[in-house]
Amino acid sequence: MTAQEKLKKQNDKLKFVCVGLDTDIQKIPFDLKSLPNPILEFNKKIIEATSDLAGAYKFNLAFYEKEGSKGIDVLHESIQLIPDDVLIIGDGKRGDIGNTSQKYAEMLYDEFKFDSATLNPYMGKDSLDPFLAYRSKLNFILALTSNPGSNDFEKIKLLDNSFLYHEVIKKVKAWNVNENCGLVFGATKKEELIDDIHLFGNLPILLPGVGAQGGSLEEVIKIFKQNNLTRFLINASRGIIYKSTEYDFADKARAELLVMNKIINSIMSE
Amino acid sequence: MTAQEKLKKQNDKLKFVCVGLDTDIQKIPFDLKSLPNPILEFNKKIIEATSDLAGAYKFNLAFYEKEGSKGIDVLHESIQLIPDDVLIIGDGKRGDIGNTSQKYAEMLYDEFKFDSATLNPYMGKDSLDPFLAYRSKLNFILALTSNPGSNDFEKIKLLDNSFLYHEVIKKVKAWNVNENCGLVFGATKKEELIDDIHLFGNLPILLPGVGAQGGSLEEVIKIFKQNNLTRFLINASRGIIYKSTEYDFADKARAELLVMNKIINSIMSE
Repeated sequence: MTAQEKLKKQNDKLKFVCVGLDTDIQKIPFDLKSLPNPILEFNKKIIEATSDLAGAYKFNLAFYEKEGSKGIDVLHESIQLIPDDVLIIGDGKRGDIGNTSQKYAEMLYDEFKFDSATLNPYMGKDSLDPFLAYRSKLNFILALTSNPGSNDFEKIKLLDNSFLYHEVIKKVKAWNVNENCGLVFGATKKEELIDDIHLFGNLPILLPGVGAQGGSLEEVIKIFKQNNLTRFLINASRGIIYKSTEYDFADKARAELLVMNKIINSIMSE
Repeated sequence: MTAQEKLKKQNDKLKFVCVGLDTDIQKIPFDLKSLPNPILEFNKKIIEATSDLAGAYKFNLAFYEKEGSKGIDVLHESIQLIPDDVLIIGDGKRGDIGNTSQKYAEMLYDEFKFDSATLNPYMGKDSLDPFLAYRSKLNFILALTSNPGSNDFEKIKLLDNSFLYHEVIKKVKAWNVNENCGLVFGATKKEELIDDIHLFGNLPILLPGVGAQGGSLEEVIKIFKQNNLTRFLINASRGIIYKSTEYDFADKARAELLVMNKIINSIMSE
């Protein structure tokens, strides 16, 4: 299955929540910490408890790289635990000159076998080309991010009075010849989402920022529903995986995802 | 020694070449490939042959991450081989929301103990803050990169008719309160370098793009000399480490660095 097919399959079942596995050894329950591989155990329990409810999983590479070579092995093993028809995103926001991006693309798509990756557009087209050459993958390129610093450059005004991220969206649409591009757009940016959603075309959207960062699931879903767009993922990381920091973390993660899916269903089925 | 002190020490000895260890298993000499750890052996021989001549070393993280957990171990071990007073740059062009950038900063500066890192400014100030909090390190932030795609966004025109990368330079100067910021500026961008060098102030500059990418060492050095700027590094990767792909690769790397240093000396000592 291509990445787009996996996304369609889950979205068609009204699964729009991407579970972010930003697994931090300092935040996982105390009773897991004595096990030989606590991060893998944590991921395993979260995935088992949520895989029938999740639209996708996103691995934040920083949290695994921070653990050195062991973290890389955990990442490999965690990916194996996810069902074949669920999209897996490698969130590393990479982007570099061609021969370097080629290595990152091979790492993410050939070695780890991610279906999808997040990419940083700053260095331009040739910095993304090695990723765009993978026709069956899905490349989520940063447009407007969820953090306050998005005002520094992403929302800088261009000559025609548009913002820089508008130009990114325009270019990504032009680069989407293999239908393997998407956009990252912050769920915290409600006003911009309303103003700009007509620019997205058929690009799938990954929206981080719900929960810990302050974005509203309900508002975002309503905006997509009103615009008849059905290819998107709302990422929640800390709000799901650390809903409880006790032994019941997996049950509480599942319960939280059920609550989110109920909100989504009530809006999308209207 | 702080990163700035290491840079000053080497620059004051007219060492301006940063040796880029973009070590690719496919490109190293055949007779190393049968060894248990060919990439480490390659790096060891290159470092031994060049460490008295190099102004800094830059590890391109993509090439190590591509090799999985073994690559991470090789990176750790390679870093240990570099003399204490030579700057070591972790080239990963990272940048993410705060809690994620915090993990990347800990990985690069606490775990690997790099002196310096390359960072991508697209997501703005708070995406770089965790790095900027390390006062003794040196954060090289992308301004204008050496690749053709730099025209897509870095050279997009803003309302005041300046380019986006001009705004990056302006902001990085404002963020430099701990004197731990620098800029990445492509050595292939001669005209822009001449036009903009007066904007750099006292920010150290990392210039990739000499050699394989087409930048001229001589021209870049002359521009810095004419502007009395003496805190910079010109990166050369493929042009040094793959100067020969035979058994004599380390000798040829040293010979190439001697040639480069001779050109630099003749211009800087004028």
